[in-house]
Amino acid sequence: MTDLPVHPLAASFSVRLEKPSPSDKRADRERLVEALALSLGEALPVDIPLGILREMPRFLRERDFSLSPAVVFAGGRGVVASLEGAHLYGAALDIGSTNMAASLFDLVEGRRVGEMERENPQTAEGLDVLTRMHAAMGGAGGRLHRLLVEGINGLLLDLCLQHGIAPSDLYALTIAGNTIMTHFLLDLPVENIPLEPYIPAAHQIGFLSPRETGIAMCPHGTVYVFPNVGSYVGGDVIAGILSSGLYKEETPSLLVDVGTNAEIVLGTREWLMVGAGAAGPALESGISEVGMRAVEGAVYAVEIDRESLAVRVRTIGGGTPRGICGSGMIELVAELFDAGIIDGQGRFTFRAEEAGVVRGSDGSRAFIIPAPGGSDLAVKAADIENFLLSKAAMFTFLQVMVQSVGLEFRDVEKLYVSGAFGTGINADKAARIGMIPDKDRSAFVVMGNSSLKGAEMLLLNRFLLADIGHICRMLTYKEMNTDGDFMRLLPGALFIPHTDPGVLKG
Amino acid sequence: MTDLPVHPLAASFSVRLEKPSPSDKRADRERLVEALALSLGEALPVDIPLGILREMPRFLRERDFSLSPAVVFAGGRGVVASLEGAHLYGAALDIGSTNMAASLFDLVEGRRVGEMERENPQTAEGLDVLTRMHAAMGGAGGRLHRLLVEGINGLLLDLCLQHGIAPSDLYALTIAGNTIMTHFLLDLPVENIPLEPYIPAAHQIGFLSPRETGIAMCPHGTVYVFPNVGSYVGGDVIAGILSSGLYKEETPSLLVDVGTNAEIVLGTREWLMVGAGAAGPALESGISEVGMRAVEGAVYAVEIDRESLAVRVRTIGGGTPRGICGSGMIELVAELFDAGIIDGQGRFTFRAEEAGVVRGSDGSRAFIIPAPGGSDLAVKAADIENFLLSKAAMFTFLQVMVQSVGLEFRDVEKLYVSGAFGTGINADKAARIGMIPDKDRSAFVVMGNSSLKGAEMLLLNRFLLADIGHICRMLTYKEMNTDGDFMRLLPGALFIPHTDPGVLKG
Repeated sequence: MTDLPVHPLAASFSVRLEKPSPSDKRADRERLVEALALSLGEALPVDIPLGILREMPRFLRERDFSLSPAVVFAGGRGVVASLEGAHLYGAALDIGSTNMAASLFDLVEGRRVGEMERENPQTAEGLDVLTRMHAAMGGAGGRLHRLLVEGINGLLLDLCLQHGIAPSDLYALTIAGNTIMTHFLLDLPVENIPLEPYIPAAHQIGFLSPRETGIAMCPHGTVYVFPNVGSYVGGDVIAGILSSGLYKEETPSLLVDVGTNAEIVLGTREWLMVGAGAAGPALESGISEVGMRAVEGAVYAVEIDRESLAVRVRTIGGGTPRGICGSGMIELVAELFDAGIIDGQGRFTFRAEEAGVVRGSDGSRAFIIPAPGGSDLAVKAADIENFLLSKAAMFTFLQVMVQSVGLEFRDVEKLYVSGAFGTGINADKAARIGMIPDKDRSAFVVMGNSSLKGAEMLLLNRFLLADIGHICRMLTYKEMNTDGDFMRLLPGALFIPHTDPGVLKG
Repeated sequence: MTDLPVHPLAASFSVRLEKPSPSDKRADRERLVEALALSLGEALPVDIPLGILREMPRFLRERDFSLSPAVVFAGGRGVVASLEGAHLYGAALDIGSTNMAASLFDLVEGRRVGEMERENPQTAEGLDVLTRMHAAMGGAGGRLHRLLVEGINGLLLDLCLQHGIAPSDLYALTIAGNTIMTHFLLDLPVENIPLEPYIPAAHQIGFLSPRETGIAMCPHGTVYVFPNVGSYVGGDVIAGILSSGLYKEETPSLLVDVGTNAEIVLGTREWLMVGAGAAGPALESGISEVGMRAVEGAVYAVEIDRESLAVRVRTIGGGTPRGICGSGMIELVAELFDAGIIDGQGRFTFRAEEAGVVRGSDGSRAFIIPAPGGSDLAVKAADIENFLLSKAAMFTFLQVMVQSVGLEFRDVEKLYVSGAFGTGINADKAARIGMIPDKDRSAFVVMGNSSLKGAEMLLLNRFLLADIGHICRMLTYKEMNTDGDFMRLLPGALFIPHTDPGVLKG
């Protein structure tokens, strides 16, 4: 991103002020504000918080009226957040129900310093958000809020320490998360979110002070929280749309965020439609015993030799397999199917025994991924069944969405595939099992964590606020799971790749 | 003021929100913000602080989506400061170096509820501001700040309690004070104010949160601090200009604020000039043993019978005289002169003994004001001398100011006379001793505390913010005491009414 023009949410400006004289008796505040207005080159009011103003008279005279203040751009104003902004950092944050991911930027150089991912500490209070919402409605809301804020502070602190940066040098933080996570973050009541007609406390949050959010960073810095457009379409989706650029295209494109909750966006620069639905936890490896998050030891890629049926996996970090993450599961099922170890309905075939499928004490069968130096991973028939239900839901969402506006997959120019999988999804294999349409490979854009990417983009370019507003105004929402077409179309998609392969073609 | 259209800094608006439904899934925040935008009828962004947002979902449903939120107008935005603004009060405050005066308003009815005056508690650390500034530069700034804030909190609390009002129902506070008091209020450094070229830390302060200022009131309310245009022209002068309306007139008018520091404004709606100078403490009864603030027991009016020379005084509260306030001193000297007890140079005449003037142990003479049931007040020759020096400075300031723009007193349409005297100045008697020009009585507008009045006007009409900005931009500053003409013209004004009575005519 270094070669892009950078208009970060916080920037420092070298100014050499005119010194006070009998013919120039401007106060210190006005002297700096007027000089900054010239440096900024934008018609933007500049504020100086009282805390900074108190240090200013002495500081200006010690530095002989030459300084490089840090200015934070928040809510249509510039705010002088520090009189010396030599070290100026910012962070982008994606808060998922399961994972939190942060990236750290040097805002002076527009350079990525590092990134870090960690489990959302709320998972200790319930793996899925519904459990957590019920806990909040029973009085645990404050605790869930504190868990999340402490988790964020811990993540940012460790990320900063890893790179020798003081958290007080963080001037801007952009946060994208789903509507529920955003509510937990701000300690807003979630009680109306799970009930008809699913009303959040707020759509637009905007810029908050670190004090209001409880986040440890420069006290005069700013925290931007991405808006949501409804209980099921959160700031993570808005950030994803922003990072895909789909909202600026002339021909229709699709953006699909694969996860427990699938979000699908279809549109052009003139219209945007978003649908969300529950695809089940199989895509985020929630239920299966061998499922795990995309952290060290997770299988993310699988190959099975068509002849020998020998299985070769790659794990994050390269070590012994400890479990399978979402993208690994997609690859595994695609390979099992292509090698003839499972059939179109996901059942183990006659080749299963040859492939080393074993039968457990309960009579159920499992495919074994050897883990030298660890425990072998046993992928059960039920795991595959669950996964196929999720992949069927995913595909049907896409199908319903495209059909609802009278289009077909061939009318879709690009397919942005996003998912908080860490290493990204293999679009080829996802298409082979019929989870996404079978388009030309050049149509696929695999995005990794599109929500985090959107948060990063805003951190480095404040002018994208206008784009975010534009996206929110354009978006119309389509309920997916309750759609009649969804129930009608789902059964065909349970098959690998589909009972009617023609519908996959794009 | 009740018959004026009222646009107070805080107002409540009855709104009946559309209830959420499957076809209207707006979040609670947006539902209220959009309804308020319609009620406001202004294109004004509306914010809802997190603290309020957290209570909102439950509150809206308990009230069946009908409510009367209090909206505070601060810095170009509306802020929802409470979900139920049935009791909505505001206060205006004038912080003088010696006195603080507050008035309390019911902002729903636009009605004045009460007022209260009290000594500035900083006087315990030094009667004059120069002493306090030196103390601040020696490290006592924090203490002076806390003294003032605690004093304001005490004054507001007592004023509220007197009228059965909770301080948490104060939603807006407007504060006018001189530049030094404003700096002490906000704990801003004063160290450069007394030194060439006299640079304040800030001119424009604007709206602050109660938390930032330490003032006990509704936590989501707002505190507006009047701007200054220099170390010697503070927010009190800006507020005075606002309340006089001088800045909207076609022909030149004068505004004079009589006090230890005299401020003089001359101008029209097209130009405004302000001068400030030290007139000495005699006008605020600072040095004299009998001098006192305009509180209960202070002599504010004096009559001396031309025949019997019997003295009759009126005191604030009507009780026994305890001292003489500034306006009382003006009347006393005018009466002493008219009765022939002092001559044009302020010296006691042959009638002095007849009038009961006594000679003290140090040989100095003193005029006695009897105080039945208390200690008689002895006005010494030196007190009269000091007073004449102050009145001469006052008049000369006016003369220099008017002459500096090539005008004479006859060109001046109106003379606004202000002074934090509580009961107001007697312009007739002030003119008789040559303290102000001898114009037709219809030209005099006696204003009392014009600074407090300006603060009250803004509290009740937020659109005056534009006028304040206009006044600040128009004002040009003229240094008075260092002016060559001042030293040349002063001696003539030491005489009662003047060595050249012709210059008094207007």
